[in-house]
Amino acid sequence: MSGGPLAGIRVVDLTTVVVGPTATLFLSDYGAEVIKVESPGGDILRSLGGRSKSGQLSGKFTHFNRNKRSLVLDLKQEKAKQALHRLLETADVFVANIRPSALDRLGLGTDALRARHKRLIVCNLMGFGTGGRYAGQPAYDSIIQGMSGVAACNARVFGEPKFVPMVMMDHAVGLIATQCILAALFHRERTGEGQSIEVPMFENASAFVLCEHLGDQSFVPPLGEWGDRRVLDPLAQPIQTKDGWICISANTDGQAFALFAAIGQPELKNDPRFNSVKARYAHVKEYFTVRREGLRAKTTAEWLEILQKADVPAGRVHTIDSLTEDEHLADVGFFRRIEHPTEGVKIEINNPNKFSAGLRDEQTPAPFLGGQSVEILSELGYAQGEIDEMVKGNVTIDGRR
Amino acid sequence: MSGGPLAGIRVVDLTTVVVGPTATLFLSDYGAEVIKVESPGGDILRSLGGRSKSGQLSGKFTHFNRNKRSLVLDLKQEKAKQALHRLLETADVFVANIRPSALDRLGLGTDALRARHKRLIVCNLMGFGTGGRYAGQPAYDSIIQGMSGVAACNARVFGEPKFVPMVMMDHAVGLIATQCILAALFHRERTGEGQSIEVPMFENASAFVLCEHLGDQSFVPPLGEWGDRRVLDPLAQPIQTKDGWICISANTDGQAFALFAAIGQPELKNDPRFNSVKARYAHVKEYFTVRREGLRAKTTAEWLEILQKADVPAGRVHTIDSLTEDEHLADVGFFRRIEHPTEGVKIEINNPNKFSAGLRDEQTPAPFLGGQSVEILSELGYAQGEIDEMVKGNVTIDGRR
Repeated sequence: MSGGPLAGIRVVDLTTVVVGPTATLFLSDYGAEVIKVESPGGDILRSLGGRSKSGQLSGKFTHFNRNKRSLVLDLKQEKAKQALHRLLETADVFVANIRPSALDRLGLGTDALRARHKRLIVCNLMGFGTGGRYAGQPAYDSIIQGMSGVAACNARVFGEPKFVPMVMMDHAVGLIATQCILAALFHRERTGEGQSIEVPMFENASAFVLCEHLGDQSFVPPLGEWGDRRVLDPLAQPIQTKDGWICISANTDGQAFALFAAIGQPELKNDPRFNSVKARYAHVKEYFTVRREGLRAKTTAEWLEILQKADVPAGRVHTIDSLTEDEHLADVGFFRRIEHPTEGVKIEINNPNKFSAGLRDEQTPAPFLGGQSVEILSELGYAQGEIDEMVKGNVTIDGRR
Repeated sequence: MSGGPLAGIRVVDLTTVVVGPTATLFLSDYGAEVIKVESPGGDILRSLGGRSKSGQLSGKFTHFNRNKRSLVLDLKQEKAKQALHRLLETADVFVANIRPSALDRLGLGTDALRARHKRLIVCNLMGFGTGGRYAGQPAYDSIIQGMSGVAACNARVFGEPKFVPMVMMDHAVGLIATQCILAALFHRERTGEGQSIEVPMFENASAFVLCEHLGDQSFVPPLGEWGDRRVLDPLAQPIQTKDGWICISANTDGQAFALFAAIGQPELKNDPRFNSVKARYAHVKEYFTVRREGLRAKTTAEWLEILQKADVPAGRVHTIDSLTEDEHLADVGFFRRIEHPTEGVKIEINNPNKFSAGLRDEQTPAPFLGGQSVEILSELGYAQGEIDEMVKGNVTIDGRR
């Protein structure tokens, strides 16, 4: 077994792209055995996520699918459905981000699964909850960003709606799905009871945004505009130094007054616009302007040294290139280089959290499409002849290299 | 008990602002009893998060602290430390986002806690992992966004480093901390063993960004630039219609070809620039330009109807105001209106995930500062006279209203 808190837990993973694979990535980091069930075409992220020598292991795909095994099943075929149910007999968790109607057509609707596999935890990721009028509509991260108010927050800063250039809501909702599955596993451990869970992207993304930004409109009548002004102010941005960019965060009086001293304007601590948390919040534009103008005179490295001594929180603005060379990340073993059988030298990202009782202790690279089909079918008791026939009939793909 | 998978689990929560409160918010949604231990000054988000009639219940604060109880303890005083340890005797989980050196000074370092409370799960949120050279440095969301490459991704879109106008990394790392605690609870349920967990913000944020965007630089030598070009393209933005904005996501051939038909250019499906996923990825700028120009002619409502029929994923771009009036959110009971004792009518946000075995079934609004001090101290066996003395000596605050 792999080690980690979920050692011995088996997850059957019918997800693709980012939201579902994020959920199962973290489960696998915690030690679960994740079996990625792919259609013969494979997860679209294999190629959509960038270049790779084999054409199926883009960097993005590999980072969201490390430590998983791939079993190809063409679920349009009866034999594949049978194999999936045999697999589910051995599983603790089933995760899918397929629309409910499509799951029903495959005989994998929640009720059908729960009736057949009593202790199974069934987690369905979906664009929109089944209880509302958008249920069943397709969703992708960008649509969810637009609908949930992410683009609206950017509009306050940039003047028109813009996306965050990450699939941030796929990613965040995936993190929530992991939580839900863990909570259900805990419940099952205490009670023996499996259950089904619905994780809707739109609702979770809206909650993410509104917890932060509903703000003064959380009251009826509203006490003011929506939004945390400190975060939404166009001036709340990295600050230009003599040779680059820096970010600072001086919220408490101690931090703000130390910053005023560092930029040679200690008298500002007595300025009624800046002498308390509330005063600075009310005069956030002026406060940010003072900071911005004060930091032009020295280099980023000079400021980092000065501000660290003054205990004012500050950090460099990394590019992606400089981030990969960050010395702290090297200290903590953030990256791992492996010699990959087809891709050459490859950079892997480790789970950065430390558990005193240990996390997963065996690391395997992201799988080839169907790389473990034969291995898994054989574990399920299929004879070699049966497997050969399934390969011949395109029920599965033997993707070993 | 509250119901939900964590019913009966007690969490002692020494966190403030967003990252820690997010972690414990989700634990409380799953049914845990969260006791928020505050200094006499209280969580700075009470006032920093916006206006409120009482001055201590900003909208932002209330959304991250619903269903928690507040116990004020001035941990500089010996009697407060004693009370905290009495509380920890009854607890399953301890969470803090205080710097390790400060925790040590309070006698709340990991080793001290684990020695005294064997079954306790100790989760420390920190800016930077203890194994690296930035350990112990202060961190806030904006600094982490700058250091982890969020601002660098925005620089590719906007020409210079910008923050995402949400405390997105506080929020995301909080979601990860919830996972870690749930995994440790599961482990303890199976083995009886408590443990300590370190959750560093910088490392988790860097992993969040790099899993998405290290891309072609995941290989040595690199196969190309970093970054998912589809997401980073400045044209990958909401699209202007006749009367507003819309977002669409047409990734598969089926979706792209249906979109071409909808905008009256069905012949583009045979265009070698657009006739496959790979072709559109290679010609992403041209593809986005075609989409943008094609959508100007009709209103958002017209397009939504057309695109829904064509099964092309699309959605409106909500403002925060229109989001709060979204009919699907109303259908699923996303918001709840309560009559608050001091704040008047207040809008609460519900956890949107559905568990067939149930989630927390009692909802309480975010606490006043020290609102449950007397109640909790009395549960711990303190006599009324002792509690009165603690209030008088400013060891605690009786914040009942």
